[in-house]
Amino acid sequence: MFRSPQAKHREDVVGAEGTFILGDWGTSALRLWLVDADGFVLDRLQTTDGAGTLQGDAAGAVFSRVTQPWRAKHSPRIAILCGMVGRRGGWVEAPYLTPDRWSELPQHVAHLRLPDMDVRVVPGLRTRAADDVMRGEETQILGLTRHQPDFDGAICLPGTHTKWCQLAGGQIASFRTEMTGELFALLSRSSVLRDAVGPGFDDAAFDIATAEALNDPRAMGRLFGIRADWLLRDTDPAAGLSRLSGLLIGAEVARAIPDINGQNVALIGTGELTDKYARVLRFAGYDVQIQSGEEMAIAGLTSIANQMFELTDG
Amino acid sequence: MFRSPQAKHREDVVGAEGTFILGDWGTSALRLWLVDADGFVLDRLQTTDGAGTLQGDAAGAVFSRVTQPWRAKHSPRIAILCGMVGRRGGWVEAPYLTPDRWSELPQHVAHLRLPDMDVRVVPGLRTRAADDVMRGEETQILGLTRHQPDFDGAICLPGTHTKWCQLAGGQIASFRTEMTGELFALLSRSSVLRDAVGPGFDDAAFDIATAEALNDPRAMGRLFGIRADWLLRDTDPAAGLSRLSGLLIGAEVARAIPDINGQNVALIGTGELTDKYARVLRFAGYDVQIQSGEEMAIAGLTSIANQMFELTDG
Repeated sequence: MFRSPQAKHREDVVGAEGTFILGDWGTSALRLWLVDADGFVLDRLQTTDGAGTLQGDAAGAVFSRVTQPWRAKHSPRIAILCGMVGRRGGWVEAPYLTPDRWSELPQHVAHLRLPDMDVRVVPGLRTRAADDVMRGEETQILGLTRHQPDFDGAICLPGTHTKWCQLAGGQIASFRTEMTGELFALLSRSSVLRDAVGPGFDDAAFDIATAEALNDPRAMGRLFGIRADWLLRDTDPAAGLSRLSGLLIGAEVARAIPDINGQNVALIGTGELTDKYARVLRFAGYDVQIQSGEEMAIAGLTSIANQMFELTDG
Repeated sequence: MFRSPQAKHREDVVGAEGTFILGDWGTSALRLWLVDADGFVLDRLQTTDGAGTLQGDAAGAVFSRVTQPWRAKHSPRIAILCGMVGRRGGWVEAPYLTPDRWSELPQHVAHLRLPDMDVRVVPGLRTRAADDVMRGEETQILGLTRHQPDFDGAICLPGTHTKWCQLAGGQIASFRTEMTGELFALLSRSSVLRDAVGPGFDDAAFDIATAEALNDPRAMGRLFGIRADWLLRDTDPAAGLSRLSGLLIGAEVARAIPDINGQNVALIGTGELTDKYARVLRFAGYDVQIQSGEEMAIAGLTSIANQMFELTDG
């Protein structure tokens, strides 16, 4: 960050020590990074204070509390946040932009002035047809394009609500949300299948279910079979859970394939869920790269910060 | 009931007054009918004592309590029950039969002797591949074939777990369970869509969603749009709920159509849910008849009772 010719001017803006706070404040988690003027991460923290439930000043109180140690030691003067924190009724609303205005994110950050800090919140995106929205992922996708300016293809961000995005010529052409993660949680914890599923991963059960779902758009009609298998054959609950996951993710990937249309696929995320999407996509014959969600968020926020100050200084 | 030549003999069996108890004891409801020797329903009762949670003797205690008035007044000596009451760990287990042995239900009822009454429990069915089961529906389907001995085609029994059954030559050729009802309940009450849905029925929203789902196997990928519509356009929650219902039922019917394959469809059920299935099936171009689940259960249990006593007396 701040590698442009106006470095001296910007130091005035960001405080004597030149530290920033970057953050991805999602529905269920708050992730913050303290970065120096060269873009190095000095410290990081993560809490379960989700922006999904914090109304207005409640978010401000959480932010003040968790950043207190950084403020006492480093006096950061600016925070740049993306994610659900910018929703209506959240801390400060950053209205949605349509994908064709994705490159204008830095011009449309919402501002909030605290006594010792300026808080900037990145807008989310909405489709022109008003049938989908994202908040936070737009910034991670921006981070990916900063890492790989030539990337063209499909981007998948696995999560409770997985986003699928088409990137063409450095622009977001379209995006779509799938609720597979939430369906999996509801079905495994609260449905009649809950008796038949349990912890563990059975890769054979997962792969068989994946293959079924990729080959047959009627896979959703086979969910009850997980219970029947357990009732009649006392199937291992780990196999049941893996089958549920394989049927759901396989069906989601089957729905995505007509859009991917033979292109590259980049996955942004970490952990088991992302690994499962990679496994299904590779099984379906796709070249897949995986990028860390944290790194992409930092890269995207840094890019927005740099553009913001170009704008401020220009 | 008891219209066969051995009527006198059977009167000894069933008690001086010749009354019977028939029942459909499902996961979440207990339905009982007091019938006379001519098959007329003298009284009926329904409670929310689901057999899904009642282990062993707990079911017996509930049965004794709710039937006490009938026992005091009519001294019924026999009860014939179908449904989840016959599951393993329930009151008395009636092991599953495969569909090819469907006509042998009367030979395979489980017996339980109370001090003043014999209780008989009808087996459920399991597919030969061990990937599906039913308990209770087999008896309603039997009832339908007693009403319409020549019926050939698809039978759909809407519910939390909807059953689709193929009837050919008076035999169950195959069946399949869909979890649409449970998915609808989970998504409308516990998912991120809950803010966007509310009571009421918007037939235009339902029909549009139905048409989308019938025409595109990727309908499950559009669920999140219900939330986006509400966020961005403040959509009426009744329209949101109707769209959710239309997408889910439409997708289920789309999965069923390759099996229905142009045949007649009989729906067994009552109320709004059954009406919705009829609406979607008619929209898809199918001739649909609706039969009452209660009437079909009584007809099926009566048929089993008659065959049981033929067997006993023969």
